[in-house]
Amino acid sequence: MPQTPHIEKHFTAGEAVRDVVIGMSDGLTVPFALAAGLTGAISSSHLILTAGFAEIAAGSIAMGLGGYLAARSDAEHYASERQREEEEIVTVPEVEACEVRDIFKTYGLTDEESATVVEALRKRPQDWVDFMMRFELGLEKPVPGRAWKSALTIALAYVVGGLIPLSSYIFLADAHRALWVSIGVTLVALAAFGAIKGRFTGASMIRSGLQTMVIGGLAAAAAFGIARMIS
Amino acid sequence: MPQTPHIEKHFTAGEAVRDVVIGMSDGLTVPFALAAGLTGAISSSHLILTAGFAEIAAGSIAMGLGGYLAARSDAEHYASERQREEEEIVTVPEVEACEVRDIFKTYGLTDEESATVVEALRKRPQDWVDFMMRFELGLEKPVPGRAWKSALTIALAYVVGGLIPLSSYIFLADAHRALWVSIGVTLVALAAFGAIKGRFTGASMIRSGLQTMVIGGLAAAAAFGIARMIS
Repeated sequence: MPQTPHIEKHFTAGEAVRDVVIGMSDGLTVPFALAAGLTGAISSSHLILTAGFAEIAAGSIAMGLGGYLAARSDAEHYASERQREEEEIVTVPEVEACEVRDIFKTYGLTDEESATVVEALRKRPQDWVDFMMRFELGLEKPVPGRAWKSALTIALAYVVGGLIPLSSYIFLADAHRALWVSIGVTLVALAAFGAIKGRFTGASMIRSGLQTMVIGGLAAAAAFGIARMIS
Repeated sequence: MPQTPHIEKHFTAGEAVRDVVIGMSDGLTVPFALAAGLTGAISSSHLILTAGFAEIAAGSIAMGLGGYLAARSDAEHYASERQREEEEIVTVPEVEACEVRDIFKTYGLTDEESATVVEALRKRPQDWVDFMMRFELGLEKPVPGRAWKSALTIALAYVVGGLIPLSSYIFLADAHRALWVSIGVTLVALAAFGAIKGRFTGASMIRSGLQTMVIGGLAAAAAFGIARMIS
């Protein structure tokens, strides 16, 4: 693949960054909203911390294991599809060659125009399988060991994110005072996180920071309102 | 694209299904684990319901808005990359043609073998842009209106999933008794959800059901343990 600047720009958001974003987005938002929501119903910081830590434990494990299973199932899906393509290239090469022509037909190319590429691929079975995996099925080769790394990164990012809004409840016994500190600290953290995320995904840092802050704020406000209503 | 059986099989997992899976996986797991965890520290069903509903509100909004922004940012990314490709095909056609040759080179094809395809694409600028979007950048055209639909589907699935483990706390005032009912109901729901998910993603239904049940159980057990420890 050519390394032109506009490709590189978008690929700086690697898979580890994506995992940190997944974990920290929810980690900063949900425990914050939960603690804020409970402060509408409970005045003891201790109970709110109990709920907050229980949520961090539940959320980080659920998200981490979810990430693990998603990566594992991607890898298994890739392996089984690859094996199928490898068999088909041997057992029904004409059908597969026809599929290559069909791919090019969707881009307006005639059979004559794609003929040399089809013939060239037929001479190189491994490259042909690679070609079908990417261009027919749209599947990327998974990185080995990715599932565990992904799970740990997501879970750790969730824990780090979740501890930020809870920190004020650790130091302030009065939940209502802790809430105001938590709101301030978390909104700043959300804005900073959103800005850094924007930097990696190529979006505007200011816009991404504001958007991320608004999400956390909305989720917390809704949770606060609902907890007030039912208590 | 050719509609061979092995493609169709995997594409039954449409985007709406994926959104339901995203929302319900977390919806069934996190409120369940939180309620179970709090039952280790609090014996009033009412307080646990307060925390549970606050968590459902926070989690569904955070996940729904997260899904909305992800879909929006995919669409914006696609549009900006497409515009860039359209410009480059006009301003630096030689560079772009070279990029097409480079793509084929990664599959072992010589410049001579890919020449006819390169020439054919140069005659059809729109198809050429489509080709570059998919084969150089690996980007799929986003569906219009997808962002809102995605957000609502994820949020609703989260709410539905989250109400299942909380239902027993609504009917049983004693949190410890409610917990046992909640565990039973939720493990059954997790297994059923996992099995249906497996049906759509092409995995084994039994294995997927068991895996999903184990995740929920582990997350809940950890949350339970942590809430006990700090209370």
